[in-house]
Amino acid sequence: SKRHCETHQLLSTGRTFSEFPTAGSDPPQLVDVKYLSFLIHCRIMRPDDANIAGNVHGGTILKMIEEAGAIISTRHCNSQSGEPCVAALARVERTDFLSPMCIGDVANVSAEITYTSKHSVEVQVNVLSENILTGAKRMTNRATLWYVPLSLKNVDKVLEVPPIQYAWKELEEEGRKRYEEQKLERLVTKERNGDIIFPVINPEPYTVGCSQSSLIHLVGPSDCTLHGFVHGGVTMKLMDEVAGIVAARHCKTNVVTASVDAINFHEKIKKGCVITISGRMTFTSNKSMEIEVFVDADPFVDEPKERYRAVSAFFTYVSLSKEGKPLPVPQLVVESEDEKRRFEDGKGRYLQTKAKRQVQMQPLTQQ
Amino acid sequence: SKRHCETHQLLSTGRTFSEFPTAGSDPPQLVDVKYLSFLIHCRIMRPDDANIAGNVHGGTILKMIEEAGAIISTRHCNSQSGEPCVAALARVERTDFLSPMCIGDVANVSAEITYTSKHSVEVQVNVLSENILTGAKRMTNRATLWYVPLSLKNVDKVLEVPPIQYAWKELEEEGRKRYEEQKLERLVTKERNGDIIFPVINPEPYTVGCSQSSLIHLVGPSDCTLHGFVHGGVTMKLMDEVAGIVAARHCKTNVVTASVDAINFHEKIKKGCVITISGRMTFTSNKSMEIEVFVDADPFVDEPKERYRAVSAFFTYVSLSKEGKPLPVPQLVVESEDEKRRFEDGKGRYLQTKAKRQVQMQPLTQQ
Amino acid sequence: SKRHCETHQLLSTGRTFSEFPTAGSDPPQLVDVKYLSFLIHCRIMRPDDANIAGNVHGGTILKMIEEAGAIISTRHCNSQSGEPCVAALARVERTDFLSPMCIGDVANVSAEITYTSKHSVEVQVNVLSENILTGAKRMTNRATLWYVPLSLKNVDKVLEVPPIQYAWKELEEEGRKRYEEQKLERLVTKERNGDIIFPVINPEPYTVGCSQSSLIHLVGPSDCTLHGFVHGGVTMKLMDEVAGIVAARHCKTNVVTASVDAINFHEKIKKGCVITISGRMTFTSNKSMEIEVFVDADPFVDEPKERYRAVSAFFTYVSLSKEGKPLPVPQLVVESEDEKRRFEDGKGRYLQTKAKRQVQMQPLTQQ
Repeated sequence: SKRHCETHQLLSTGRTFSEFPTAGSDPPQLVDVKYLSFLIHCRIMRPDDANIAGNVHGGTILKMIEEAGAIISTRHCNSQSGEPCVAALARVERTDFLSPMCIGDVANVSAEITYTSKHSVEVQVNVLSENILTGAKRMTNRATLWYVPLSLKNVDKVLEVPPIQYAWKELEEEGRKRYEEQKLERLVTKERNGDIIFPVINPEPYTVGCSQSSLIHLVGPSDCTLHGFVHGGVTMKLMDEVAGIVAARHCKTNVVTASVDAINFHEKIKKGCVITISGRMTFTSNKSMEIEVFVDADPFVDEPKERYRAVSAFFTYVSLSKEGKPLPVPQLVVESEDEKRRFEDGKGRYLQTKAKRQVQMQPLTQQ
Repeated sequence: SKRHCETHQLLSTGRTFSEFPTAGSDPPQLVDVKYLSFLIHCRIMRPDDANIAGNVHGGTILKMIEEAGAIISTRHCNSQSGEPCVAALARVERTDFLSPMCIGDVANVSAEITYTSKHSVEVQVNVLSENILTGAKRMTNRATLWYVPLSLKNVDKVLEVPPIQYAWKELEEEGRKRYEEQKLERLVTKERNGDIIFPVINPEPYTVGCSQSSLIHLVGPSDCTLHGFVHGGVTMKLMDEVAGIVAARHCKTNVVTASVDAINFHEKIKKGCVITISGRMTFTSNKSMEIEVFVDADPFVDEPKERYRAVSAFFTYVSLSKEGKPLPVPQLVVESEDEKRRFEDGKGRYLQTKAKRQVQMQPLTQQ
Repeated sequence: SKRHCETHQLLSTGRTFSEFPTAGSDPPQLVDVKYLSFLIHCRIMRPDDANIAGNVHGGTILKMIEEAGAIISTRHCNSQSGEPCVAALARVERTDFLSPMCIGDVANVSAEITYTSKHSVEVQVNVLSENILTGAKRMTNRATLWYVPLSLKNVDKVLEVPPIQYAWKELEEEGRKRYEEQKLERLVTKERNGDIIFPVINPEPYTVGCSQSSLIHLVGPSDCTLHGFVHGGVTMKLMDEVAGIVAARHCKTNVVTASVDAINFHEKIKKGCVITISGRMTFTSNKSMEIEVFVDADPFVDEPKERYRAVSAFFTYVSLSKEGKPLPVPQLVVESEDEKRRFEDGKGRYLQTKAKRQVQMQPLTQQ
C-alpha cells in the first residue's frame, strides 16, 4: 500500500517535464521531456486574492500566469549575448478556468517555452491548485501566451528571439501552425477597438446599462516592467475585477470567472498614465454571462498623446450556489439595435466555443 | 410594477451628473448638469481594507477619495497645453462617515470639479457603498478637496489653473465663498504645529498616555506621485490607522472613524523620508472620542533638512456594538494643565459641530 | 486597586528605554536607560499578514523587524554630516518566536542601537503583540540585527559608523564580544553556499522530495532601498513563505514559524532581478521540522553576472492544533546519503539549541 506522492517541485536546471493525464491515476503523472526552458512557482492564496465567498479571482490567476510567462520569456530572450531586452505580452489565447481555487490553497504555476518565431515566444503555463491539508491537486488553468522582446534602450525596437530546440520535429510544426493562426486573429480583432460605453440614466433592471461599470487606476511603479510599461498581468487583473463587478451587479450572487477569450495587447501603457477599465454585459446563456471589457489609457501628464484604447476582451462568468454548483442566470434585457447585435455576436461565440469543446472531447472518448 | 434601477455608471465624456435626494425615492435620482469634468470609479472592498469586525477603515475611504481627486484635478490642470503639472493636495474639508462600508461591498467613487481659483481646484467627491448582492446603495461619504498644480519641472512653482464653466452663476459665487473661507482657516491652523507628544512611563488606565501611539513608515515608490512626493491619500490612511489604534486602546471594542476635521497639507513629504505618525486622545463625549494626529517627516538621508511637522488633524471615532449601534465610551482621564486645555478645546469643537449640524438640518425640515 | 497600564509609547527624543522582566509582574516593566537612538512602531495585523488559521506569518514579523532596524541604523549612520548612506542588512542573529500573533492584534515594534563597531551597527528589536480588546501584551520576538552603511554614491564603499555612548562600560564590552562572535560565524557559513535542490519525480510520502518547494519573485521597486537593492526584510518574508509551504506539505496541518537560525546576507540583490527561493526539509524532531531555504538571484537582464546564491537559512516550524497546542510531526524519511547527513546535522543543531536554552534558563532560576 505504498502510495506515490505526486509532486513537481524542481529547479530550472535545463531539464524539464510535461504533465499528461494517465488512466486510472487521479493526480497527474510526470513525464520527462527535453525542452530548453522551464519554471515553477508556488504561492499561498491570501484573502485579498479572493472574493468574499473565498474563491480566488480569475484576475489573480491571470496575473500569476503572466508573471511566470514574462520571466521565462525575458530570460530566454536574454540567453544569448546581445542587446538586453524585456519580453512584452502581445497576446493571451482563450483560457478556461477549470475548477475554483480557494484561500489557503497553494497555486502551483509551471511555465515552459513551447515555440519561438523570429520575433516572438510562445509560453505555455499550467496552474494547479493544491489543497495543502489534504494534498489534493486539481488543474485550474492552462494558458498560452505570446511575448515579443523589446530592446531596453529603444522600446520601439523588436529584437530577434534565440530559437529553441524541439524534442520532436512535430512539435515545431504544430507551433508554427499556432503562430500563424494567432497572427491572423490579431489582425481581425484590431478593428473592434472603436467602440465606447455610453452612460445610461435610470436604467431598467437586467438591462446592459444597469450593470455596466468602470474603474480607474493610476499606474504606479509596482505595476510596471523595467521599461516603465504596465505588465500585461496587471491589466488583466483589473479587467477581471471590472468584469466581476458587472456580473455581480447583474445576478447579485457569488460569481466566478469561467473563461477569458483571447486578449491582444496592441498598445503599451506607460507609467504615470490613468487607465479607465469599463465593462458591459453583452450576452447571457442559461448559466453564463459574457462581459466585454475595454481598457483606455489617458497619458494625462507630460504627453502630447490623446486617450487611446489599449486592450479589449470578453470574459465569461458563472454564478455559483453555496455548494459551488452553477446557478441559472437572469436573461440580459437588450434594448438598442447595437445591444441586440452584440447579443447575437455573443451567442455566436458561445455556440462556437461549445462546438469546439465537443470536438476536442471526441478524440479523448475514442481513445 | 416596473422598478427603476438607479445607477450612475458613465464614462468621462465631458457630460456629467449631480445627485440630488428626491422625496420618496430611497436611492438617489440622477439629474443631468453640464460641468466640465467628471470621474467615476468602482472597487470591491477587500479584507485588508477593513478591520477585524469587517468594517472598512476610514483611511481606506480617504485614500480612494484622494486618488480620485488627484486624477481629476491633474487631468484638468493639464487640459490646456502649457507646462505639464501634477495636482498636489493642499486641504481636505471636514468630512463625516455617514454609514459603515463592509468587506465585499463595492465602493462607488464619483468626483467632479466644482470651483477653480487662479491657483487652486476644488473637487467634490461622493462615495456610495453598494451591497452587490441586494443592490442596496448608501451614501458613505461626501468630501471636498483642494488641489494646487505644481510644475513637473520645478516642484516649487505653482501654475495657473484653467477656469471651468459654471451651469449657473450662483455656483461660481458660492465656490468663491468656500475658497475664501478655507484660505482663512489654513492660516489659522498653521500655528498649532509646534506641539509634540511626549513619552509616558506606566500611565494610569484611561489617561492620555495610556492610549497614545505612534507608527513609522519608510516612504516607498508606490506611495508617491510622479514628482516623488507622498500622495495626500497615503498620509491620511496612515493617520487614520494610528487614530484607530489610539481609540481601540482606550475603549477596547470595535471602533470606526466617524469624521475627520479639515486637514491642511502645509509641507510636502519626499520619497525616501521616514515619517512618524503619532496620535493621542484629546476629548471624549458620551459616545465619541477625538484623537489628534501628527505627521513628522525625517529626511534622514541625503538631505540637510531637519525633522519637520508635515500635517496634523483631528479624527473622531465611535465604538460600535456587534449590531452596529454606538456604545458608551469610557471618559478620558486628563491630568496635566495641557491635557485639560486640550480637552476643553475638543469639547468646543464637539459642541460647534453639533450646533452646525442642527443648523444644516433645519432648511431640510422647513422644505 | 489602582492598576498600572503598562505601555511604552514614546517618540524618538534621544531618551530611550529598555524592558526587563520583573518578578511577579506579567507585562514587562519599563526602566529608563540613556541610549542614543530609539524607535517605536505600532501596526494592526491584517488578514494578508496571516495564514488561513489567523496566525501571523513569521515572515511578516521578520519584515517589520528589519524595517525598524534599517530605519534606525540608517538614521544613526547619517547623524553626522558626511557622505550620505543607507544601512544594509548584513546578518540577523538566531531568533525564537515566543508566542503566536493573530489578525487584529497590534504589533508593537521597538528598536534600539546597542553596539557600533567601526563599520557596523548592532540593533536590538523587540516585538510585543497586544490584544487590543483585552489590553494583554505578550513578548513575541527579540531579534538582533547587524547593519553596514553603504555610500549612496558608491554602493561598494562601506562608510564609517559614528560611535554611540554607552550607559555602562560593561555594555560596550559585551557588545564587542557579540561583534567578534558573529564575525567568526559569518566566515563559517559562507562555505555552505554551494548546495542545490534537485528535482524529484514521483517522490514517496514524507520524503524530502515530497515537500520541497520553490517560489519565484520579480524584484520590483517597492522591494528595494534607495540604492535599488532588495530590503533584507523582503527576502526573509519570501524565505519564510517557502519554508511554510514545505512544512505544510509535509504535515498537512496548521504550521507556524518557531525560530529562524542566524541568516547572513553575503550578496546584495538588485532591482530587476528574478529571485528563486527554494526550500527542503532537513530534519524532524517529535514536534518540530527544520527547513533549509536557499535564495538564488538571476540578474537576467542587462547584466553580465551569472545566477548566484544570495542567502541561505534554516527555519524551524511547529504544527499547531486548533487550540494552539504543538502537535506531533510525521518523521522525515531520508533516503540518500546526503539527506542522512543533513538530518544528522539538523539533529546536532536541534540538540545544541535545546542545551543552550537550558543554560540560559539557569541564571534566571538561581536569581
